[in-house]
Amino acid sequence: MQTSLKIAVVGSGLVGSLLAIYLKKAGHTVHVYDRSPDIRKINFSGRSINLAMSNRGWKALAGVGVGDAVREIAIPMDKRAIHLVDKLNFQNYGQEGESIYSISRGTLNRKMIDLAEEAGAEFLFEQKIWDVTLNDATLHIGETERGEWEEKKYDMVFGADGAFSRIRHRMQRQSMFNYSQEFLNMGYKELNIPANADASHKLDKNSFHIWPRGEYMLIALPNLDGSFTCTLFMPFEGKNSFASLTDRKMVEDFFTKNFPDSIEVIPELANDFFKNPTSTLVTMKCFPWTYEDKIALIGDACHAIVPFYGQGMNAGFEDITVLNEMIEKYGDDWKKVFAEYQISRKPNADAIAELSYRNFMEMSTKTADEKFLLQKKIEKAFSDKHPDKWIPLYSRVTFSDRPYSEALAIGDFQNVIMEQILRIDNIENIWDTPEVEHKILELLQK
Amino acid sequence: MQTSLKIAVVGSGLVGSLLAIYLKKAGHTVHVYDRSPDIRKINFSGRSINLAMSNRGWKALAGVGVGDAVREIAIPMDKRAIHLVDKLNFQNYGQEGESIYSISRGTLNRKMIDLAEEAGAEFLFEQKIWDVTLNDATLHIGETERGEWEEKKYDMVFGADGAFSRIRHRMQRQSMFNYSQEFLNMGYKELNIPANADASHKLDKNSFHIWPRGEYMLIALPNLDGSFTCTLFMPFEGKNSFASLTDRKMVEDFFTKNFPDSIEVIPELANDFFKNPTSTLVTMKCFPWTYEDKIALIGDACHAIVPFYGQGMNAGFEDITVLNEMIEKYGDDWKKVFAEYQISRKPNADAIAELSYRNFMEMSTKTADEKFLLQKKIEKAFSDKHPDKWIPLYSRVTFSDRPYSEALAIGDFQNVIMEQILRIDNIENIWDTPEVEHKILELLQK
Repeated sequence: MQTSLKIAVVGSGLVGSLLAIYLKKAGHTVHVYDRSPDIRKINFSGRSINLAMSNRGWKALAGVGVGDAVREIAIPMDKRAIHLVDKLNFQNYGQEGESIYSISRGTLNRKMIDLAEEAGAEFLFEQKIWDVTLNDATLHIGETERGEWEEKKYDMVFGADGAFSRIRHRMQRQSMFNYSQEFLNMGYKELNIPANADASHKLDKNSFHIWPRGEYMLIALPNLDGSFTCTLFMPFEGKNSFASLTDRKMVEDFFTKNFPDSIEVIPELANDFFKNPTSTLVTMKCFPWTYEDKIALIGDACHAIVPFYGQGMNAGFEDITVLNEMIEKYGDDWKKVFAEYQISRKPNADAIAELSYRNFMEMSTKTADEKFLLQKKIEKAFSDKHPDKWIPLYSRVTFSDRPYSEALAIGDFQNVIMEQILRIDNIENIWDTPEVEHKILELLQK
Repeated sequence: MQTSLKIAVVGSGLVGSLLAIYLKKAGHTVHVYDRSPDIRKINFSGRSINLAMSNRGWKALAGVGVGDAVREIAIPMDKRAIHLVDKLNFQNYGQEGESIYSISRGTLNRKMIDLAEEAGAEFLFEQKIWDVTLNDATLHIGETERGEWEEKKYDMVFGADGAFSRIRHRMQRQSMFNYSQEFLNMGYKELNIPANADASHKLDKNSFHIWPRGEYMLIALPNLDGSFTCTLFMPFEGKNSFASLTDRKMVEDFFTKNFPDSIEVIPELANDFFKNPTSTLVTMKCFPWTYEDKIALIGDACHAIVPFYGQGMNAGFEDITVLNEMIEKYGDDWKKVFAEYQISRKPNADAIAELSYRNFMEMSTKTADEKFLLQKKIEKAFSDKHPDKWIPLYSRVTFSDRPYSEALAIGDFQNVIMEQILRIDNIENIWDTPEVEHKILELLQK
């Protein structure tokens, strides 16, 4: 057991709440601050994408024994349901029994705060942190940025306050702080597929639904109440864009033409389209993540990524797993804990940022492409036969806890091999022959 | 003539001062703010690298007729003097008569402020701008960040306040603002070669002196008073680093061993080494650079680069040339002026950032490499014979006003050709034969 410290966690989101549980179980006093009201007492909707919990997320939850509580609010999705304009294809995510899990962000966040309070963490809502003094872990709290501030001193402060972190904002103003934020020219908007009258799902419940259309796409993930949370990803400007759809009729015509099987299941389409905000998508990278043994950033506050691999929360939770490993290894030597935590995590955060950025192309374009689906079939067949020689990239990211950076590197190597395989004459007919299998084995030797 | 506006320029550095002259000559009221005291009334030294004014800088100065005034404080350098451990080589920068010009930053800045005041701009020193309201161009000025602020409203605000711009700081907090800052793991320190007793220079006056040593290097640029401003570039940490040289003897031994011909000309070596600060090197990129017709960033405030191409000031001055072209084209339509200015400049700012980053390798390593010097000789010979077909990259950047982005692209293409040329058997003996000339011509056709 470590020496008990007084620790502030800034941000009561998913990562902040789970981190609070870990820190409480390690014997510390934990105060979790949030500038917003208690999410358990307000409606939370209109701008979120359902979460897809996968192996890294579950592992971090299991580390403090809260996996089962979360599993109660999760729906397994073992496949993609790919809605082409004229047909519906299915594509399994992994091996038999492997699924990712759809969870509503609001529902999970409420649950995580409940669990953290049960563990003994204290939550302080509607407390606006405007600044932090790095060398003595003092928070500066007040109603407005230019008004009176109160000071609260801690032994240590964690910034779990998201992509626009105030804690990081202070660190950015140090010399030698590397930082980047890059917005996509694409936004997203939440839509809704309500449940049937009998609370059953209108589409296949255990699928991640995608309508891939190249420059834009629609997705839908199931909720417990029979509804689906839908998200439309589309450029802000240009031909098919949020800016181009300016009235109800244009929105309805656009969906009728491009997502014909969605029209009947999204009854409030035009209402939601104009009521719900259009949100931005940002990739944020920085380094260092920590200051001495006083301050550490975690989750989106140090590595915000685009959502196309469903790994944002999973990566944030894995930060906690790694931090906890370092705590178990180095005990009270928090300088060492923080130094090793950031060195271990940084290359993996960069790798999942890259993979997530690339995956928009895979979801929006390649899932509609016969060649890509053939590649997936070949990989699956080879992987089934030689599980020690080939784990597909998606499985490495989603169903393993091997480093993201390794997944990225091996995935690139596998792609080079598959490009050669797909160039074999008549590959669409001979893809499951021993000839192809041997060719892959041969290329793996190189 | 445009409608006369009340314009604030934040930053009284080189770009701010020159911009003030342009804006005054266009008939506007111009207030230039700076948080520091008037540089004309204080000592300015200890942390600067001498400037190398080249074509783009001169062109911007000529646009308002102040080139001659600046030429009086400039020293032409027509070549590199490359100090190897055991010999001294010279390498011309361009054609006969082409030079870059060494100018002390402090001397130039004082001159530019004088010229701007003569043109009618009003300078307000020791005025700290903490914030700006973007949509009505209001500056917030006060003694401290958390103290009382005064508001000053303008028609338009230019942020010429450098790599750590407060004006940009406010723009960064908008959604969809792309931003990155990346520090090199290398710093620099100013040293000094004093004049001889008769005010003559101790080294060749008309050379840019380099001591290329791979991971680190020393440079020296001449001053009017017979001295040279030297700059040591070296990693912060590691074997040969600022951190590794901890006492006077270590510094002196290091110079004796690695820069033997510098020892006798830098008499205050150890004193200056420990007195002068070690400065950082940052590349900063962002976009957008403007807000409506109210705010525009210019110079380092929107594109800070590392100094290895000597183009930082030149690029900032060229921003002004381009801005002025847009003003001449679009008159009072400032939205259009700002939009076209940023669209035109952004790719060129990115290109010179990339070229500057790469040029450390050229200066610190390649200038000591026989193969590289041979490549330069071949390029020079071919370019002399076919000036319409081959302008070397350095000349495109330094002695032309063609876009930096074009220089980068053509430079990369030329490098591919030269790699093939350098692989020709016995090239060191046949480099100036018609065979090699024809091979280059042939490769250029592809």
